[in-house]
Amino acid sequence: MNAHNLPVCFGIHSVMAKLRHQGTVSMLYLSPASSARLSALEQLAIEQNIEVIRCERNRLDELSGNGVHQGVVAEYRPRPANQSATIKQLMAGIDTNNALILILDHIQDPHNLGACLRTAECAGADAVILPKHSACPVNQTVIKVASGAVESLNIVLVSNIANALEIIKKKGFWVYGASDSGDSELFETDFRGRVALVIGNEGQGMKRLVTGACDMLVRVPLFGELESLNASVATGVCLFEIRRQFAVIERDSGKDAGWQN
Amino acid sequence: MNAHNLPVCFGIHSVMAKLRHQGTVSMLYLSPASSARLSALEQLAIEQNIEVIRCERNRLDELSGNGVHQGVVAEYRPRPANQSATIKQLMAGIDTNNALILILDHIQDPHNLGACLRTAECAGADAVILPKHSACPVNQTVIKVASGAVESLNIVLVSNIANALEIIKKKGFWVYGASDSGDSELFETDFRGRVALVIGNEGQGMKRLVTGACDMLVRVPLFGELESLNASVATGVCLFEIRRQFAVIERDSGKDAGWQN
Repeated sequence: MNAHNLPVCFGIHSVMAKLRHQGTVSMLYLSPASSARLSALEQLAIEQNIEVIRCERNRLDELSGNGVHQGVVAEYRPRPANQSATIKQLMAGIDTNNALILILDHIQDPHNLGACLRTAECAGADAVILPKHSACPVNQTVIKVASGAVESLNIVLVSNIANALEIIKKKGFWVYGASDSGDSELFETDFRGRVALVIGNEGQGMKRLVTGACDMLVRVPLFGELESLNASVATGVCLFEIRRQFAVIERDSGKDAGWQN
Repeated sequence: MNAHNLPVCFGIHSVMAKLRHQGTVSMLYLSPASSARLSALEQLAIEQNIEVIRCERNRLDELSGNGVHQGVVAEYRPRPANQSATIKQLMAGIDTNNALILILDHIQDPHNLGACLRTAECAGADAVILPKHSACPVNQTVIKVASGAVESLNIVLVSNIANALEIIKKKGFWVYGASDSGDSELFETDFRGRVALVIGNEGQGMKRLVTGACDMLVRVPLFGELESLNASVATGVCLFEIRRQFAVIERDSGKDAGWQN
């Protein structure tokens, strides 16, 4: 255990993302080995008056639960705001014409869930909706794989995905479910306005009731012999195609596309 | 060990992909538990006169090296043709105006490599070029995560990626490197003709000499706080954008786009 019974995150990317949110990290555990990336983390911690403790690999292994810590573990204060909003609060906060929400329907594997969250953050999803039950929880492995996305994403946990989709639709969202048997091919589908994308789980895809609640089923065209993409890759291909179309629409209407880099 | 000292693959998706290539699987080890998916594998094996052995979970664990076998392990004859072609042989076989090749520059993690290969297969890459040394080899974990892609992809191992890019360029390929600091934004980049896409490794991106050998560096626009996508997601977003543009060009020229589903 760490000194204060607080949750820990580990790995250079995850700790860096936590440090970017000032006031989140309370203690930094660093390997005595030096590297430019570890030094950058130490520097950020010092600037924020965060206590830095040098410790051996064994101790870092222990603190991280034998995770791939890359020489750094951070103890942090969980942000109770995250993952505590309700779907209604989320909808009340949506006030733009364009919005992008990802719904993950019962992803089971923590690496897949973490990779989906990282992808959603990079694609600028306004929120990610996850089921409270019968799915992989947002655990330490998910947080690590998500590489900081859990800290910066707006994550909403719901008891029932199909019900959540009904609430979303009332707010003007069009709900697209990614499905191998979708009628509409992704790149021929028209995405505009408020878009909600549902990605099903690794084995069975979306649940029946969730499929039924979608306005449209879209499929990523496949050009090989395999039957499906990995969930996080499908998430990325779909979300970035939606973003591409948003940018084309904004450009055509004379506004800046809002690329951040 | 298995009976014949042959390599094994495991998991429903991987074994199914192997079974699709007739004459590849020599023996199927199945859990006594029955399910529709296991029955489908058994049926395929019987049709091909492949011996099916029922065995307990412990034995499947042992055969798969404690892998996630999902109740099935297959012993197969490796296809020596795969991964044995040289870059010059590969180039000699390219005779279409459009072609898509993926180059993975020293991916280190077997899950990332497997996911990249699965993505390349789904995007219909004509070949994937991997370095012979200083990178994750195509091991059992890679084969499992690739879900059958290793069996159907044309994989070429090269001693030197930068040299391989020079050979590719002589065959009329335009080489695009994916880089966070790329000058050209992915969705504003014009992809046509023979396209080679280079994806760098997880930590450092592309090596310096490889970067220098690219005709153009492209970046995936990021809309959140994180600095990069996972390698396989970046691979997917780039390859499917290239495919989308190929299809638009083919459509504009009056030909069918060739979607397979």
